[in-house]
Amino acid sequence: MPGASTLYAAIDLGSNSFHMLVVREVAGSIQTVARIKRKVRLAAGLDADSQLSHEAMERGWQCLRLFSEQLQDIPADQIQVVATATLRLAKNASLFIDHAQQLLGCTINVISGEDEARLIYQGVAHTTGGSDRRLVVDIGGGSTELVTGEGAKTTALFSLSMGCVTWLERFFGNRNLGKHNFEQAELAARAIIAPVAERLRVHHWDVCVGASGTVQALQEIMVAQGMDERITLNKLQQLKQRAIQCGKLEELEIEGLTLERALVFPSGLSILIAIFQELQIESMTLAGGALREGLVYGMLHLPIDRDVRSRTLQNVQRRFNIDVEQAERVSQLAVLFCDQLNDSWHLDRRCRDLLESACLIHEIGLSVDFRRAPQHAAYLVRHLDLPGFTPAQKNLLATLLKNQSQNIDLALLTQQNAVPPRMAERMCRLLRLAIVFSSRRRNHTLPDVRLQADDDALSVTLPAGWLDAHPLRAELLQQECDYQSYVHWPLRVN
Amino acid sequence: MPGASTLYAAIDLGSNSFHMLVVREVAGSIQTVARIKRKVRLAAGLDADSQLSHEAMERGWQCLRLFSEQLQDIPADQIQVVATATLRLAKNASLFIDHAQQLLGCTINVISGEDEARLIYQGVAHTTGGSDRRLVVDIGGGSTELVTGEGAKTTALFSLSMGCVTWLERFFGNRNLGKHNFEQAELAARAIIAPVAERLRVHHWDVCVGASGTVQALQEIMVAQGMDERITLNKLQQLKQRAIQCGKLEELEIEGLTLERALVFPSGLSILIAIFQELQIESMTLAGGALREGLVYGMLHLPIDRDVRSRTLQNVQRRFNIDVEQAERVSQLAVLFCDQLNDSWHLDRRCRDLLESACLIHEIGLSVDFRRAPQHAAYLVRHLDLPGFTPAQKNLLATLLKNQSQNIDLALLTQQNAVPPRMAERMCRLLRLAIVFSSRRRNHTLPDVRLQADDDALSVTLPAGWLDAHPLRAELLQQECDYQSYVHWPLRVN
Repeated sequence: MPGASTLYAAIDLGSNSFHMLVVREVAGSIQTVARIKRKVRLAAGLDADSQLSHEAMERGWQCLRLFSEQLQDIPADQIQVVATATLRLAKNASLFIDHAQQLLGCTINVISGEDEARLIYQGVAHTTGGSDRRLVVDIGGGSTELVTGEGAKTTALFSLSMGCVTWLERFFGNRNLGKHNFEQAELAARAIIAPVAERLRVHHWDVCVGASGTVQALQEIMVAQGMDERITLNKLQQLKQRAIQCGKLEELEIEGLTLERALVFPSGLSILIAIFQELQIESMTLAGGALREGLVYGMLHLPIDRDVRSRTLQNVQRRFNIDVEQAERVSQLAVLFCDQLNDSWHLDRRCRDLLESACLIHEIGLSVDFRRAPQHAAYLVRHLDLPGFTPAQKNLLATLLKNQSQNIDLALLTQQNAVPPRMAERMCRLLRLAIVFSSRRRNHTLPDVRLQADDDALSVTLPAGWLDAHPLRAELLQQECDYQSYVHWPLRVN
Repeated sequence: MPGASTLYAAIDLGSNSFHMLVVREVAGSIQTVARIKRKVRLAAGLDADSQLSHEAMERGWQCLRLFSEQLQDIPADQIQVVATATLRLAKNASLFIDHAQQLLGCTINVISGEDEARLIYQGVAHTTGGSDRRLVVDIGGGSTELVTGEGAKTTALFSLSMGCVTWLERFFGNRNLGKHNFEQAELAARAIIAPVAERLRVHHWDVCVGASGTVQALQEIMVAQGMDERITLNKLQQLKQRAIQCGKLEELEIEGLTLERALVFPSGLSILIAIFQELQIESMTLAGGALREGLVYGMLHLPIDRDVRSRTLQNVQRRFNIDVEQAERVSQLAVLFCDQLNDSWHLDRRCRDLLESACLIHEIGLSVDFRRAPQHAAYLVRHLDLPGFTPAQKNLLATLLKNQSQNIDLALLTQQNAVPPRMAERMCRLLRLAIVFSSRRRNHTLPDVRLQADDDALSVTLPAGWLDAHPLRAELLQQECDYQSYVHWPLRVN
């Protein structure tokens, strides 16, 4: 059983906040043990001459005294401390760093913008699903990182001198949320991005991932407002209009925007709009991690998988003692059903992948208890950290698992916003049928079953005599027809 | 990863229902995979001449056709099928058994009352906490088993010819719930128990455990009505009065009594009252398992531990990757605190044991996620099958874990009914302090802390200078004082 020696810590001395992340290695994955954040506002202590004030330093040191107590129990080679924008800029940074190192008892690396960008990319690559040809965007307090990469390798990286704290001071200093403020902020940001835009765009990413507080805030707003979680320029413009209507920063009120994130939201938004425009981004999703995750995964020497989701699902199967053979059996059958209905139900790659993911962990609830296992499965999936899946995708998985058997909760399928409700219903029906037919937990007992669909009317054709020879599954199938009929899903068995 | 070969099935052909339990062996403990029950009402098909009707047999065979489909995938030596009272009695039982064996493809053992009693005892011993000198009571449909034992060994066992179905027909045949009906039913039961009472009582049990639907129903009633879960003669008499007030079986209505259990509840109650009286039982709790669990654990060749709870807690620690060193550290500190407050807080053995149990799994929520780990811990503990802990004790553990840090939910501590609310509050306070002081996850960093209490006013005395030298824990401790003060728990740090 693990003790202190499996603990790792990553500390990031940012321009706005200092963060400490302490994790434990458990069965090849990381489990967060402590996460401490203090708003040190180091950047606010930097004067026009790039001198860091003594007060700001004192705030920083005070925070590090707290951190140091926890660090003493972690082996030195399992701790990484990095400092970013403000400490790169401050002319008297060494004064701060020297004493900080004494307090922490370990080395602090003031990393270059390029190194920061590289670490952010690593953190994203380790924790974010989808294609591995990506553009990563991280809007920090004092700098913004733009990185393209493929798999574990970065192909272009830039650290730009703009951030949501500096843009707040420069363009929203009067705390007005006027049209003019946004225009100026966007123009300035575009001027900084334009020179590097082409060198990024040449790498043709498949997905764009955002990894900062601004994108986190946007994600929370989308979810709270029941929208699809993908961020588009159109949605950003709408939010800007909404902010302008509020007029003043202290009167900013957007459903889903927390107080904690409100202050630097407009400035971050203006930078993000500029990035979308200059890089012609279609849509962006939230990353599963960034700088601190990059540091932690780097220390753990875990390889970057091409497929983050597969690693995550395997990890969950192992940690929760899921019967992998049964999971594969259900998964293969569900995929077969997708193929059979290819021409009528049009489940796209995204739906098929998520259905397969749901199958691979559908029995996770048994690790809690047999009774109400679907409810337990939904609870676990909803709250587990699942690198590679966005919050909306996790919500869809939880919804499918909740509805894997027994009564169907149609509202849940409609409320999720990872895929259109109609598609979620279809995925749910296929999952349920795959489970019914696999209930014997043996490959050779799978019947030669054929599905056909006419719009939502689904028919199941079985070999002659199969139902008579398999009374238990005949009963399950009859019950399943009843359950589906209660929610007006026509299902016929031949 | 486990496939079919780790599956085990136990089938019990009872007088009222047929049950099938399918489990999977996972890391030395059993996980339920399927549980199927059919009310076959075999006993109702037995005529005065002990001939089983063809209709009753047909109902039984029909059920076994369902069971057989699932059984085909389980190795024969991992299946046990037993038949009890009605098939012991029926003169034409072999007619039923022969065809049933063909349907199932395996042997059915019609077991003697003594064997049934022995298996029930084994099932209880494997799944029930507390002292291991026990009396076990199981009121079935057609027979009632009374067994005493110590550890894995039975010391006396009796299978008596009375059950809640036969007593229903004999004494409540007119469906009247009159005083007279109960009196007759109790007298008849006492007449059957009296001859064996002394041979049981001579064994001096420490705990009495009930393992049948009647006791399950009583447990549910106690919980629904917010009572302590221990069943006493006084409570049984009150419930009898309540039933008599209802007048008719079809008008029986008691808060917490489900429709499914109502029919045979009065007859079971009258038998239980007779047992309490003849054996002078002070109180009884619900067993964690009985006949089917006895069969399953027997096949798995798991040893009976003296301490079921320890095995359960170790199992949970292993399955959920709990940091055992940290769990032990918190546990030892909490026990030390109990000792320090021995003269003022009077936490009895039961409270101390449950506090220790809570400590040993307090970090289980981390297996789900760091965020809201206490909530996840409570969810898991509330729903996990924890052999050795009664439902009320599980509820207390969940409540303590929910309140292990952050805000305190006083209502939860008051609502649990395993220990007096005042005691639960004290356990909660000690758990929280033990966690605060152990937060460095190292033994040598534990301070020499002393607790003293004047009624509920608690004071913590630390070595001089300790707080200054440990700012993180000083902060945690200050927060802890705040949290406790919000719920009016006076806590002072010296």
